[in-house]
Amino acid sequence: MEKQLEQLMAFRKEIRVVDATLRDGGLCNDFYFTDEFARALYQTNKKAGVDIMEFGYKASKDMFDESKFGPWKFCDDEAIRRIVGEKEGGPEIAVMADVGRTDFRRDILPKDESPIDMIRVACYIHQIPGAIEMIEDAKKKGYKTSCNIMAISTNQEADIRVALNLLGQSPVDVIYIVDSYGSLYPEAMERLCDVYKSVAHKYGKELGIHAHNNMQMAFANTAEACGDGINYLDATYNGMGRGAGNCAMELLLGFLRNPKYREYEVFRFIQDHIIPLKEQGVVWGYDLQYLATGLLNQHPRSAIAFTKDGRKDYGDFYHELINID
Amino acid sequence: MEKQLEQLMAFRKEIRVVDATLRDGGLCNDFYFTDEFARALYQTNKKAGVDIMEFGYKASKDMFDESKFGPWKFCDDEAIRRIVGEKEGGPEIAVMADVGRTDFRRDILPKDESPIDMIRVACYIHQIPGAIEMIEDAKKKGYKTSCNIMAISTNQEADIRVALNLLGQSPVDVIYIVDSYGSLYPEAMERLCDVYKSVAHKYGKELGIHAHNNMQMAFANTAEACGDGINYLDATYNGMGRGAGNCAMELLLGFLRNPKYREYEVFRFIQDHIIPLKEQGVVWGYDLQYLATGLLNQHPRSAIAFTKDGRKDYGDFYHELINID
Repeated sequence: MEKQLEQLMAFRKEIRVVDATLRDGGLCNDFYFTDEFARALYQTNKKAGVDIMEFGYKASKDMFDESKFGPWKFCDDEAIRRIVGEKEGGPEIAVMADVGRTDFRRDILPKDESPIDMIRVACYIHQIPGAIEMIEDAKKKGYKTSCNIMAISTNQEADIRVALNLLGQSPVDVIYIVDSYGSLYPEAMERLCDVYKSVAHKYGKELGIHAHNNMQMAFANTAEACGDGINYLDATYNGMGRGAGNCAMELLLGFLRNPKYREYEVFRFIQDHIIPLKEQGVVWGYDLQYLATGLLNQHPRSAIAFTKDGRKDYGDFYHELINID
Repeated sequence: MEKQLEQLMAFRKEIRVVDATLRDGGLCNDFYFTDEFARALYQTNKKAGVDIMEFGYKASKDMFDESKFGPWKFCDDEAIRRIVGEKEGGPEIAVMADVGRTDFRRDILPKDESPIDMIRVACYIHQIPGAIEMIEDAKKKGYKTSCNIMAISTNQEADIRVALNLLGQSPVDVIYIVDSYGSLYPEAMERLCDVYKSVAHKYGKELGIHAHNNMQMAFANTAEACGDGINYLDATYNGMGRGAGNCAMELLLGFLRNPKYREYEVFRFIQDHIIPLKEQGVVWGYDLQYLATGLLNQHPRSAIAFTKDGRKDYGDFYHELINID
């Protein structure tokens, strides 16, 4: 389907830009962002016209040791209130809840007692029933919800269709295409969008895209999905996110034509807050070890270990990956 | 036009991968590559299946001071022979000649006296007659030729059509789409490919793509053009090239399906030869100053100056660019 010129110069008011910096970027520094950083990010999102800000995970404190992570691994409502104060305008607030890693009945309070607006439930395709249980709980409590099916580049289209039909019959609001391994080219993204759209339109669901940059395609795939009619677009400042990182906010807002989005604010935040993080040694972004796992459609964990070990023997690493197969 | 699944898994034998590392990468270090580097690159291209290797510019020594540049600013035939020895298989050898900056009648020898196979003539759209003069000279001397019309993101489609028709009537072999400013999104690339193809098919010319990475679209645009039927695909190792750099060779060979291309060799060369360059302080690649000029469809010279000055005040730079307009 050819993209329409007028749609590229005009804009679609249904588009929602979602800042996932604290959440996906938190995977780069174990969520140890200062409150000053989080506050500046919230204010920047407000000024830049970003529609939704994801704070982090609602991880279970029974499963994860609080002393080993910064606050956004757990996203206590009090911690969020400390950052946003009395909300006046500004982005909606989202948190992510992983199936099997969240005490959702205990830790997710009724919406009218919480600063959170949206619960994003992340799962693998075999966990859809668990995701629907959490979505039903969150909807009953009053939240907007999404289901983010991860690592779909490893799934069969037939299985994806079954998952989408189950979600279509659930109360979920948004279904996300998540290229966790950064393994998809835009042509594949376009075909996936068609699959997701066919089910979403049937059940009246919105769709979203969350991309990784292993093959320098995070932004290209997000732009492709946007052109294909997907409305929820995830991005992070300077692409900060696990491994090769995500679609960069500065690229996405530069691409979108809605005048409410303010590119300058993104530049300013990166200048004042992201560069210092990099100078402190927090690492993310395109590099050959992530390209290798992306090309091979693998979880990036071996590439992350390569990075942590300070290795630069890319050729050897590539051979290691090939020989495992 | 929808890309065909079978074309993505199979391959098109007409595709030619062109390594432009010494030429576009040379703009990052004034062409001061060691002979050891150039030799390793040539051997890598040979092993990796790269079809054409561009060595550098045939710049006029009357206009440029030899003491201020490494050898690949001038590409003496003797310098190339020093690297390639007796050619046995391996990539074809190309050099770039800029309109108005090359003593082409003096410095480009008859092909049967030279190790060079292909002359790539670079020009802006108003220099087409000068380009055709050089192309005619090179063809008479026995070379394969291309015309690389630079910075077309600033040109009108009507002017591009006139230029293409002039080139169509010339003896040039390949016409290049060159996104010098890294300002094009894949949708725009697809439309441009249609314009170029309509003329190229009429005159029986091949087409090529040379992309820059200001908006992290160099590879995405190259893949788009490839899917649209463009056969000559420029890339550089690790994207080494002016400003934000180019389509990365490791991404392109990972994408192409012809088994003659050997991804491992690219990883190995980057490990052994590109990482040391970076450690010596040679700088290229995506960064916000290049995004800014890309978004504004400007020459990257102000962004290159920003980089050279070691500035990190991205927000101020963005404001400077906006206020100039």
